[in-house]
Amino acid sequence: MRLRRKPWAVKWLADHADLVITQAKAETLKNNWQSIFPKEQPIMIEVGTGKGQFIIGMAKKFPDINFIGMEIQEGAVAVAGRKAFEDADELPNLRFVYGDGAGVDTYFAKGEVAKVYLNFSDPWPKSGHEKRRLTYKSFLQSYENILPANGEVEFKTDNRGLFEYSLGSFANYGMTFDKVWLDMHNEDPANLEQNVETEYEQKFKVKGPIYKYLGHFNAK
Amino acid sequence: MRLRRKPWAVKWLADHADLVITQAKAETLKNNWQSIFPKEQPIMIEVGTGKGQFIIGMAKKFPDINFIGMEIQEGAVAVAGRKAFEDADELPNLRFVYGDGAGVDTYFAKGEVAKVYLNFSDPWPKSGHEKRRLTYKSFLQSYENILPANGEVEFKTDNRGLFEYSLGSFANYGMTFDKVWLDMHNEDPANLEQNVETEYEQKFKVKGPIYKYLGHFNAK
Repeated sequence: MRLRRKPWAVKWLADHADLVITQAKAETLKNNWQSIFPKEQPIMIEVGTGKGQFIIGMAKKFPDINFIGMEIQEGAVAVAGRKAFEDADELPNLRFVYGDGAGVDTYFAKGEVAKVYLNFSDPWPKSGHEKRRLTYKSFLQSYENILPANGEVEFKTDNRGLFEYSLGSFANYGMTFDKVWLDMHNEDPANLEQNVETEYEQKFKVKGPIYKYLGHFNAK
Repeated sequence: MRLRRKPWAVKWLADHADLVITQAKAETLKNNWQSIFPKEQPIMIEVGTGKGQFIIGMAKKFPDINFIGMEIQEGAVAVAGRKAFEDADELPNLRFVYGDGAGVDTYFAKGEVAKVYLNFSDPWPKSGHEKRRLTYKSFLQSYENILPANGEVEFKTDNRGLFEYSLGSFANYGMTFDKVWLDMHNEDPANLEQNVETEYEQKFKVKGPIYKYLGHFNAK
């Protein structure tokens, strides 16, 4: 979803460069991401963090994990950052990167990230745009490049076509399936209890199924 | 679905042993299945053929393929056989086996079967019954044992839990995903046009999504 340009965003981002890190800065942090957090603990990232509701909710719920939300849209990452900033004292374990998800392995070293989250990613439904989908094999390769052996990927979407595509992409890449949910808001209460909703999810869970995949790469 | 015992079934099956082959006879046909069909052409099987609507429809639609429906329930296979018998002149390319799907590789040799169909298989929802599901890894192994390299499996079900499980089972076995449909009666008209419905499918397609998987084993 494209957002309208936010005139305040440029200045706000410049003023909060420690919370929302630029792409240029992110590249210098490779192998050194723990230095930007008060506590050294596992780092989990969300690629395409949008307005941040999920990653902020996760950071609140799991203080023993450091979270990084990556977002390429200036307006969205600024909204996410501002929302998180209002909670700043509570959220020492959350940072954002204003940058391109295609480059995660230019920012992080192998094993530096414990888990990758993808939520309601742009479906890019035209077959000519397959390579832009965040579950396309080149993206999976970049996630594998930053995760430890057996590193996990968790993916939620309401988009049937994207989920159908992604199941095949995960399988054909050689990823192991740990669990698939085809209507997660109407099954498996234990999963639902742990669930942190995104903005999209809140809106669309009443309109049709929300799909979820949990799986991992394999040691080679 | 269990069927009531059909008193006529035993005699009917004995009288039509060329159409509905016993398990004992099936074992003697290994490597020699083409001998029971008038024309030598690819053999495709349905494991758990129920009352036969799908496999009879397929045999009518694709006269250049030999079809075999396997079914372990006497009542069901007798109903299927009788239904097909009424079409006997039209269906030289259809036979049934009254036998256990767990044994497909005791009946067929490597490469003797071109494709395996699974339709609306018993979901065996209790985790303790996982090994009975027709998509459990030991079943996948038996299908691989009778298919050529890159042999296809096609699977339809309305059962969400079974489909969620099966996607993982296919992926974790190392099968390639060719396509997944998460609501096949409301998407992809080209697929639907080719679709032959089962009894179950006819009944349940209006109540919720019908799921479909098409994939294949890989040359080793």
